[in-house]
Amino acid sequence: MTTELARHAARLREFARVRDWEQFHTPKNLAMALAGEVGELVAEFQWLTAEESAAPDPETLARITSELGDVTNYLVRLADLLGVDLVASAGAKLDDNERRYAPELYRGSARKAPPLPPDGRTG
Amino acid sequence: MTTELARHAARLREFARVRDWEQFHTPKNLAMALAGEVGELVAEFQWLTAEESAAPDPETLARITSELGDVTNYLVRLADLLGVDLVASAGAKLDDNERRYAPELYRGSARKAPPLPPDGRTG
Amino acid sequence: MTTELARHAARLREFARVRDWEQFHTPKNLAMALAGEVGELVAEFQWLTAEESAAPDPETLARITSELGDVTNYLVRLADLLGVDLVASAGAKLDDNERRYAPELYRGSARKAPPLPPDGRTG
Amino acid sequence: MTTELARHAARLREFARVRDWEQFHTPKNLAMALAGEVGELVAEFQWLTAEESAAPDPETLARITSELGDVTNYLVRLADLLGVDLVASAGAKLDDNERRYAPELYRGSARKAPPLPPDGRTG
Repeated sequence: MTTELARHAARLREFARVRDWEQFHTPKNLAMALAGEVGELVAEFQWLTAEESAAPDPETLARITSELGDVTNYLVRLADLLGVDLVASAGAKLDDNERRYAPELYRGSARKAPPLPPDGRTG
Repeated sequence: MTTELARHAARLREFARVRDWEQFHTPKNLAMALAGEVGELVAEFQWLTAEESAAPDPETLARITSELGDVTNYLVRLADLLGVDLVASAGAKLDDNERRYAPELYRGSARKAPPLPPDGRTG
Repeated sequence: MTTELARHAARLREFARVRDWEQFHTPKNLAMALAGEVGELVAEFQWLTAEESAAPDPETLARITSELGDVTNYLVRLADLLGVDLVASAGAKLDDNERRYAPELYRGSARKAPPLPPDGRTG
Repeated sequence: MTTELARHAARLREFARVRDWEQFHTPKNLAMALAGEVGELVAEFQWLTAEESAAPDPETLARITSELGDVTNYLVRLADLLGVDLVASAGAKLDDNERRYAPELYRGSARKAPPLPPDGRTG
């Protein structure tokens, strides 16, 4: 099955290929490019209150949407080069967090749970 | 059509809801959490050469995959709260970059193109 | 005159030298290490309200202080390798911002000013 | 004794005061602004090789110097608001790292040492 992310990764691959940019697209460099774009995304929120950030005005939302697009492009390209399935790895981390953060213990709390033991079982 | 990212966003929404964590999940806070995870991802690559980063050993790749999962989770959750379609916004930025970086002018070059004019046409 | 930052840079230089770490300390790698530490710093603040961030409890403040130390170490080391005087460059940027943000126009406002013209004059 | 950083912090304090910007300068917001500037700094290095990053051309070095100035300004301002002495905290972390990374064990190696035990002794 070809997913939307796999199709987008293929388009990014072709974009780099026709420009002979594969030489620049090492995972190290792409991680840096991702960090740069996330910096631009964070900067959009830096002076907003929590409430303002939840309801940005149209111009701000357009800039945020544009930055989210840049972040997604570098993230998808990086994962493609490393052969990582982003949704599968995100799902695996969410599985872990469902076990680390039992609802009855962490409801309404922002405190950090201890890491899972290496074998992944929780007692 | 329900995509894989939309399904994952729904799962993250439910994860936050049952823990009463929606109060913490403002776009501002999620942008910070995303930046924190991207920092951990970058740290995995910081002492690797370009070549090493393209062929990480299994333990390093497992840590990178785990960090990519964390990054994806916060990115998908942030976009969901703002009503942004990540693949659509990434596609729109790629459309722009295909016009900004004409292959015949930028082949093999890492130099930055001028921004597109506001109306998005390229001359 | 030897300043406190110049003395600290010298200590960092010696720390790297005796460990034969100069091979890892390229400016590119140090910029990544700095980004990683700033990610850890941001993560300390991600779930705090604005008010909580201004008065962190002692354990949180100790962790923040520790992260600020890591950030400072990589920043000073990076600047040292590039021959950049951090306080001089910070002072130059503050000079610029004093001209970009005239108090009578930007009092109480978080909006962004246009960049200064290339010759640095403001009208 | 008034150090160069303490003097610069006082200048930043006054800059914010006369613009009534103290309302925006919470530690949380300043940590975000710092992350944004570090993102811009990292972006300057993203496509450079290790060698190029060690000897940037004059235009690139000027942009890097400017970004280092921005990073320093937000770092000094953040530390000032929290009452943290940056050079003291950096020195304390360097003390720790001198114990964590014994030269005879870590010479020429980029591997990570285990954290120091809570009481800070190394056996």
